[in-house]
Amino acid sequence: MKHALSVTRQQNFAAWYQEVITEADLAEESGVRGCMVIRPWGYGIWERIQKLMDAEIKAAGVDNCYFPLFIPLSFFEKEADHVDGFAKEMAVVTHHRLVPDGKGKLIPDPASKLEEPLVVRPTSETLIGAAMSRWVQSWRDLPLMVNQWANVVRWEMRTRMFLRTSEFLWQEGHTAHTDKDDAMVETLRALEMYRAFAEGPLAMPVIAGEKPENERFPGAVATFSIEAMMQDGKALQAGTTHYLGTGFAEASGIKYQDREGTQQLAHTTSWGVSTRLIGGVIMTHGDDDGLRCPPQIAPHQIVIIPMLRDNDEDTAVLDYCRALRAELLGQSAFGEPLRVLLDVKAAKASNKRWSWVKKGAPLIIEVGPRDIAEGKVAVLRRDRLYKDDGKLATEFHLCTDFTGWAGPALEAIQHSLYAEASARLRNNIVRGVTDIAAHFGKDDKFVGWAEVEWARPTGAALDKVVAQLKAHKLTMRNVPMDAAVADGLCIFTGAPAVERILVGRAY
Amino acid sequence: MKHALSVTRQQNFAAWYQEVITEADLAEESGVRGCMVIRPWGYGIWERIQKLMDAEIKAAGVDNCYFPLFIPLSFFEKEADHVDGFAKEMAVVTHHRLVPDGKGKLIPDPASKLEEPLVVRPTSETLIGAAMSRWVQSWRDLPLMVNQWANVVRWEMRTRMFLRTSEFLWQEGHTAHTDKDDAMVETLRALEMYRAFAEGPLAMPVIAGEKPENERFPGAVATFSIEAMMQDGKALQAGTTHYLGTGFAEASGIKYQDREGTQQLAHTTSWGVSTRLIGGVIMTHGDDDGLRCPPQIAPHQIVIIPMLRDNDEDTAVLDYCRALRAELLGQSAFGEPLRVLLDVKAAKASNKRWSWVKKGAPLIIEVGPRDIAEGKVAVLRRDRLYKDDGKLATEFHLCTDFTGWAGPALEAIQHSLYAEASARLRNNIVRGVTDIAAHFGKDDKFVGWAEVEWARPTGAALDKVVAQLKAHKLTMRNVPMDAAVADGLCIFTGAPAVERILVGRAY
Repeated sequence: MKHALSVTRQQNFAAWYQEVITEADLAEESGVRGCMVIRPWGYGIWERIQKLMDAEIKAAGVDNCYFPLFIPLSFFEKEADHVDGFAKEMAVVTHHRLVPDGKGKLIPDPASKLEEPLVVRPTSETLIGAAMSRWVQSWRDLPLMVNQWANVVRWEMRTRMFLRTSEFLWQEGHTAHTDKDDAMVETLRALEMYRAFAEGPLAMPVIAGEKPENERFPGAVATFSIEAMMQDGKALQAGTTHYLGTGFAEASGIKYQDREGTQQLAHTTSWGVSTRLIGGVIMTHGDDDGLRCPPQIAPHQIVIIPMLRDNDEDTAVLDYCRALRAELLGQSAFGEPLRVLLDVKAAKASNKRWSWVKKGAPLIIEVGPRDIAEGKVAVLRRDRLYKDDGKLATEFHLCTDFTGWAGPALEAIQHSLYAEASARLRNNIVRGVTDIAAHFGKDDKFVGWAEVEWARPTGAALDKVVAQLKAHKLTMRNVPMDAAVADGLCIFTGAPAVERILVGRAY
Repeated sequence: MKHALSVTRQQNFAAWYQEVITEADLAEESGVRGCMVIRPWGYGIWERIQKLMDAEIKAAGVDNCYFPLFIPLSFFEKEADHVDGFAKEMAVVTHHRLVPDGKGKLIPDPASKLEEPLVVRPTSETLIGAAMSRWVQSWRDLPLMVNQWANVVRWEMRTRMFLRTSEFLWQEGHTAHTDKDDAMVETLRALEMYRAFAEGPLAMPVIAGEKPENERFPGAVATFSIEAMMQDGKALQAGTTHYLGTGFAEASGIKYQDREGTQQLAHTTSWGVSTRLIGGVIMTHGDDDGLRCPPQIAPHQIVIIPMLRDNDEDTAVLDYCRALRAELLGQSAFGEPLRVLLDVKAAKASNKRWSWVKKGAPLIIEVGPRDIAEGKVAVLRRDRLYKDDGKLATEFHLCTDFTGWAGPALEAIQHSLYAEASARLRNNIVRGVTDIAAHFGKDDKFVGWAEVEWARPTGAALDKVVAQLKAHKLTMRNVPMDAAVADGLCIFTGAPAVERILVGRAY
């Protein structure tokens, strides 16, 4: 069977991923090391993610702010004091002017050297901590909950579009609370927000749980994540939330006077998701014809392609399509009005059809003079593109029925994408594995994850577990929130197990 | 009469501006040179601006994208070749790692020096040009219209919050067209979009017009602006649009094959507005009690303050306020549901009231046990805070009437803010001035603008005009689109005038 992409997932998953990104117009190389250009379809998906997630963030009483792109070098020195062998891959601004070198080139003007270099934010943590220390005085100021949507930079040697780029877009939530309970409630609220968001708008099933000690965010008392399973069986950490105890408040001076007049340190949390989510959507829903974009985050949910022939009938076809679009705009799905594009670009209708198939527009409609005469529209559902015989599964709908059918159909597509991915996740988590090496040693392309019982060793014993897993390119993902109680022995140490943890390969 | 701020506009406009920003929680110093922290109320206003402007941009068929933060140094060399005495104030990244210096400090790792320094984008023009050269092949690819919402950096020696900061937030639209007519239509569409946006959601009257040659964006064939009049009579350039001819396409290699198969250069445009708009809103609508936020861009349009006494009645008051909020959320203004905050922060009701007065929430509602008993709410309209006797102009409304009254009241406030600012603009543009020096030489605090006739000299003659104006701290603002035809002599040269141009002091 012939497909729209030149590489299939089975042949080469990494090359397939890259081809989807190119062919679906999601992103492209920018010519700037490690930085990508996010193209309209990719950025449109990010805008949908932002819009829906931002509503959840606001509903939780969190305020959006904006903090500076630059952080003075000295802000990092405290951290460096504590961390052995501190070396941070970060972009450092050292000059503030360019001048010609006299040989036709430009150089940083030596006279413009900064007294203190500025670091391009890898996260705004330190600046937000400094602001919180100004904003928090009394228990009345707590909880203080802020969020920022911004670009951040972490110098990466090996980059991969959306998954690991030097510059990426994200949101970072930072909150301060009077006590541990309050902070932990917020940490888990954010985790549940991410879980529901991944499984809702992204149709991407995930496992929410706590990270083991060795995978904790530096300085965190507890780190939680949502982990999604990609179609190659690898895990993608798609969002994290952290309870930071009072350590971060101590470093930043976030103190408050309690009701009794005593100075106390605040308990803080942080949580974030990034453009990495788009990589997750591609590797969860893409097929050998390109992306299948979940309707809830599709910039256009329905694309109408008029079959134009450069003749007298064109006007009537366009008028018909415009009227159809107007009617569809009055319909809704997921509680929002439908997003409908009439694609009038000067190109062959069949080329446009395949371009939208590769982009993954959920419903692709073609309308020609004959359809109009018959009062019909030709409809392609992107989630089930082909019939059993390998031909396109074009459905013909009476135009009078179609507008009412479209909204529920989009919801059905969203559901079918989720159901498909959910079955994959469920069916590929193995329990009862007794020998990690034997289970993961097989050279299967698709190995999935194992949920194993372990004794949660620490220190050198934990290091040994991590090394043992690393030999098979494995890592511990998280301890699922809803895992069964442990009742056996630790697969690593043989000691009585205390909980169940997921093990797998990861991005 | 006593006011909420310590400085009045009359006493010291610059100090007043700064105090509004602080007291209205709009922004604050970050400790990072030239960069501000945009606080929740300020960022909420920016989010409203983004949301409403973005809808206009999308409706015009422009696609949002995202381009890299960093631009390789060599991208600027072509420009430097052409510009005498090229020296650009820009943040330059030269290293990608920090390491300890062995004395407890961090330094950029000499081993991490970049082969080619990276410039933090002052605009994305060059990168977008490079992308357009890849995306445009044929006349079928045109018009190509993209927009980006992003942060940009221009190293500034003297900064002023919102008006001139080293880092600021903006949108930059870039479009490519087959011919001049098409590009000019887009340039003027963007100008009209900005005019309508300023006079609509911002309630900020502006004059839209073409900039004189000396104020053109470098490389532009024509530059247009919207100019707003601040309460000190100075002009604020609040948005610009540029027709760039084919020069930018030539520099970036944006070429297309026309219908006849001939290679042609595209005609391009660009247009942008920034967080500077917030500075304009402050200086247009602020009064001696703080900001008066136009309802259409107010993050919260109505703030409900429960009068809590830490006693048994509190629960009933809170329940009543919640029900009131729920009812208001079902109402709308400007075609959108009302945005209503119930302020439950632990603070005295009168402190909260004044905090919202300073922030400029359009309607401030106070509800206490007595109001509930009487079925009333106490309402403050922020656009007319005081009665003639200097007391607060609190109105009491029957609760049953209030919910229906609120939406239209917000629209009335928007209108009254616009009307007040519009009268100020109209009344302070003087025509018939014959002697610039005599008119602007007076040491009035408020001088406004003059609309004068001129012959549009070029070259040395224009330089002379610019120098003459500069001696009085004046600049030419723009040639209003709707100015009367010139019929006299040039105020500068005495030659027959060809058009009318605005002259004034500016930010």
